[in-house]
Amino acid sequence: MEKHTISVLVENKFGVLARVAGLFSGRGYNIESLSVNVTENPQISRMTIVTTGDENVIEQIDKQVCKLMDVINVTDLTGSHFIERELALIKVKATPKNRSQVVEIAEIFEGKIVSVNKCELGIELSGRAEKIDDFIALLKEFGIIAIARTGRVAMSKNSECSE
Amino acid sequence: MEKHTISVLVENKFGVLARVAGLFSGRGYNIESLSVNVTENPQISRMTIVTTGDENVIEQIDKQVCKLMDVINVTDLTGSHFIERELALIKVKATPKNRSQVVEIAEIFEGKIVSVNKCELGIELSGRAEKIDDFIALLKEFGIIAIARTGRVAMSKNSECSE
Repeated sequence: MEKHTISVLVENKFGVLARVAGLFSGRGYNIESLSVNVTENPQISRMTIVTTGDENVIEQIDKQVCKLMDVINVTDLTGSHFIERELALIKVKATPKNRSQVVEIAEIFEGKIVSVNKCELGIELSGRAEKIDDFIALLKEFGIIAIARTGRVAMSKNSECSE
Repeated sequence: MEKHTISVLVENKFGVLARVAGLFSGRGYNIESLSVNVTENPQISRMTIVTTGDENVIEQIDKQVCKLMDVINVTDLTGSHFIERELALIKVKATPKNRSQVVEIAEIFEGKIVSVNKCELGIELSGRAEKIDDFIALLKEFGIIAIARTGRVAMSKNSECSE
């Protein structure tokens, strides 16, 4: 069962998020992560949903979501032609004694230190989900205090140029 | 009416997202953006919701969301003691003639170029929502092809150190 990233363009109206989320839970499709925000057109929002399933299940999801009110279109953004990103804010224990170790790991991953006090560090990290997973796994030994992680967003790498 | 960032910790179970989204739409509370993903504990997910309302409305939302099944706790993360971030992938028209202008703007905002071909550039940008809004506004004159934007995530800057 593969992870799929599904992009859903919707009219920015009351209830459309509840309708899409309700379809997933009602049919027993899992939502692993979800992001929703406005697009360049404030009347239209884009939802990006990460879900798991074989080709059949994903085809079913695409069809059923398409039929919902205020849904404009549904695209499966899975595969190598897509750039995928998530962002995480991670607060980790770090004392003056071991702080430099945590900072070093953050630098390797190109994370940004966003807060610090005498017992903890706040780090911002963006990248593919696997990179964020690896970063969190490495920080576990120091003691993770909190994680706030966006859902995934994705975009095709290239499109045809008209000329 | 102020924008509020509300963090909702939930059991990672079927239907909890639909329940929370349904409460917002059923009561007529707007969801401006939403992010949901797992935390350091894979049994628990964190939703971050941006909504608009006066103090009374936000208090009502907090109370009602708290009562929903599988909701662990609700925190209002609004104010100066919180770090807020979003991430956006933006595809913009850029020809060999004006590409360097687009790249220059991306560099000023500390964005990363993630894809390029002869007619467009893909840029990754993270930061506060206002920064991303400003960046998008500046790119509009070149022609925006697509935007995929995560919901917001937020984290308190500091907590009390126990010693």
